[in-house]
Amino acid sequence: MERYDIAIVGSGPAGLEAAINAKIRNKSFILFGSKDLTTKLLKAPKVNNYLGFYGKTGAEIKGEFEKHLEFMGVELTPERINAIYSMGDYFALMVNEKMYEAKTVILATGMSYSQPLKGEEEFLGKGVGYCATCDAPLYKGKVVTVVGYNKEAEEEANYVSELAAKLYYVPMYTGEYKLNSNIEIVEDKPVEILGDDHVNKLVLSKQELITDGIFVLKDSVSPGQLVPGLQIEDGHIKVDRSMKTNLKGCFAAGDCVGKPYQYIKSAGEGLVAALSAVSYLDGNR
Amino acid sequence: MERYDIAIVGSGPAGLEAAINAKIRNKSFILFGSKDLTTKLLKAPKVNNYLGFYGKTGAEIKGEFEKHLEFMGVELTPERINAIYSMGDYFALMVNEKMYEAKTVILATGMSYSQPLKGEEEFLGKGVGYCATCDAPLYKGKVVTVVGYNKEAEEEANYVSELAAKLYYVPMYTGEYKLNSNIEIVEDKPVEILGDDHVNKLVLSKQELITDGIFVLKDSVSPGQLVPGLQIEDGHIKVDRSMKTNLKGCFAAGDCVGKPYQYIKSAGEGLVAALSAVSYLDGNR
Repeated sequence: MERYDIAIVGSGPAGLEAAINAKIRNKSFILFGSKDLTTKLLKAPKVNNYLGFYGKTGAEIKGEFEKHLEFMGVELTPERINAIYSMGDYFALMVNEKMYEAKTVILATGMSYSQPLKGEEEFLGKGVGYCATCDAPLYKGKVVTVVGYNKEAEEEANYVSELAAKLYYVPMYTGEYKLNSNIEIVEDKPVEILGDDHVNKLVLSKQELITDGIFVLKDSVSPGQLVPGLQIEDGHIKVDRSMKTNLKGCFAAGDCVGKPYQYIKSAGEGLVAALSAVSYLDGNR
Repeated sequence: MERYDIAIVGSGPAGLEAAINAKIRNKSFILFGSKDLTTKLLKAPKVNNYLGFYGKTGAEIKGEFEKHLEFMGVELTPERINAIYSMGDYFALMVNEKMYEAKTVILATGMSYSQPLKGEEEFLGKGVGYCATCDAPLYKGKVVTVVGYNKEAEEEANYVSELAAKLYYVPMYTGEYKLNSNIEIVEDKPVEILGDDHVNKLVLSKQELITDGIFVLKDSVSPGQLVPGLQIEDGHIKVDRSMKTNLKGCFAAGDCVGKPYQYIKSAGEGLVAALSAVSYLDGNR
């Protein structure tokens, strides 16, 4: 398996600027993100505080960013990372059943993740998981609940339903669901996850589901959930001025490290994170 | 005298981005800098690591910055600040014989100042000065030496020569000099400033000049010389992640606060410094 020099997680201004600098510095890297780059930018009306751009919409600036990536030959891998584990001298990045490896990681995950459910963090790894396809084998012949925040969650639910004795699907969005016929759709609002050593119940507004496992499938999880052991302070990843986190080889930039939530602040930090990663790789640790 | 909300010192990417944000936040401000904005940017060949711009020269990007300033109605005051004094709840910014006042200061002075001469810092205020026109009255009938790093220094030398008994002019550049006929031009390299309680001699490579005062007139002085009391660490202004310096109401951004010396890093910091100044002004201290 290729072990990249740098894995960049997130395709907002911080992630893109980090990727451009990784490219300029001739490091091997992989950039994970969304083909839309960033929904926040897409939705922005006029942006006037990004030096060099004025009177442009967020969508127009996104267009300039895309042209820049193309010009530099920077490619985006449109996959969603579920977990990142520090393995000592490298990191393992999990994408459902797949794994990527990188010597350094730059977290540029933004702030658009949903709040955890009550009990979610407490039971994480004790029946609560974020990757249904990874953990499905554990639930062969058992009762599983999938709380799905987007349509991609349906694919995972379908996969797990082939192994599980019973699968409840709790959609957190409205629309048509493409689910196997043996899946029971529960249109209700989750309130709390309960259990003793291990999950045994999902409490919703109008009912309770007895379940052996719960997968919470969101657009993105909070950085602290994404990277076990990562130090969080006041809701943001703690970094120093060189964008180092508390984990060796792990850097962070953009909204996820703190306010102000502004594009050029994120981009500037993305550059610093990339150059700090390069310096780390080159042995100036 | 108008007391500005924010005085921004420097017209590189950090200073410009700070000014744009001061404008957007409806603060009164004054932006000091050079009409060229930044000689560093002007001299840059292709710049590819400023997200959104690629394949452009520094001069082209400078053109975009200028258009942005014009679009926002941000004006530049082309004056060189010689000293900034913290007066408690405001700052006094000295420009030769003039003074400006501001409630907050953002230092974005870059790193392109020359190294001090040997003895320069030791005798600062004891015969060494950076503002000939301010201090000229002290040298009426005395011997003064002006070490000039640029053509603007010639004007100051001419002014002082009208009061002084004798004026030596040591040019640190080559070219034609427009100096009064009573000025003695000394084309030699300064080595060290000597004195006891007060300056009495400038040692050059080939000679020594007995002098009562020495003015060192550079493009810019180091931040520690510019702002007495400012905390410097490893050659850069010490700031926290919100771009606060150790002086209340004084913020800093760009190359002067540390590496990497990159445009978008500076611009991002300029934004953070401006919003921190705004927050300070609005009472969230």
